[in-house]
Amino acid sequence: MSFDPGVAIGEESDVVTRQVGVDDVLQFADLTGDHEPIHVDEVFARSTPFGERLVHGVLLLGLMADRLLTATHAPPNVSYGYDRVRFMRPVPVGSRVFLSSRVLHIRAERREVVVEEICRLEDGQPAAVAHHVFRFI
Amino acid sequence: MSFDPGVAIGEESDVVTRQVGVDDVLQFADLTGDHEPIHVDEVFARSTPFGERLVHGVLLLGLMADRLLTATHAPPNVSYGYDRVRFMRPVPVGSRVFLSSRVLHIRAERREVVVEEICRLEDGQPAAVAHHVFRFI
Repeated sequence: MSFDPGVAIGEESDVVTRQVGVDDVLQFADLTGDHEPIHVDEVFARSTPFGERLVHGVLLLGLMADRLLTATHAPPNVSYGYDRVRFMRPVPVGSRVFLSSRVLHIRAERREVVVEEICRLEDGQPAAVAHHVFRFI
Repeated sequence: MSFDPGVAIGEESDVVTRQVGVDDVLQFADLTGDHEPIHVDEVFARSTPFGERLVHGVLLLGLMADRLLTATHAPPNVSYGYDRVRFMRPVPVGSRVFLSSRVLHIRAERREVVVEEICRLEDGQPAAVAHHVFRFI
């Protein structure tokens, strides 16, 4: 059976930019119940090596979610998980992030596409990288 | 250098339960910008094989975030990413989920602990499993 996910290996999204403010982080903490002090407690965060509050990694992952395989651009598909995610650098609350995606693998026999999603900080260096697996239905 | 993360391999968290309602899903969509119709559009979702709106996988991941290695129970640590995440079964909006964690690996030489986080539905079967990597600072 042929498999046409509507994207090609190496295809890239536009870069989307977005500021992640304290309101976003507090709202995410309330939504998920993750009130770890490194994210929500300014005084505690100042006492850590980071010196300030950090954005939850999973909130970044939500922002990074690929826009290449949207319902309007590709056949129906769902997120099937991640092969690997790394939060390599801390992202302080208030940071501006730059989000982009690139098609990494097409696994025709499994009807899966793996998209590399990258979150960069203003210096252009990656803060988070995810290998996001989409399965076509 | 010795490494004591304050937990042992196999150690398990309590099970936490939580209902994921339509308000949670719409709030997560607004927060992340992920308004894919399978999550937010009831009419579209009815036309898919799932028949109803599904909770975003990354919102589940946020809810699953381990409570074993909290700031009050373990030395300071941060989420360093995931070795693997799978969303194996669809989680319809409105579902009650059951969340638990178990220490899977301790990588002393890297100062990392890997926690398996599981999200089950009411029938007790896993809907999502994540191998969450924590690095101690």
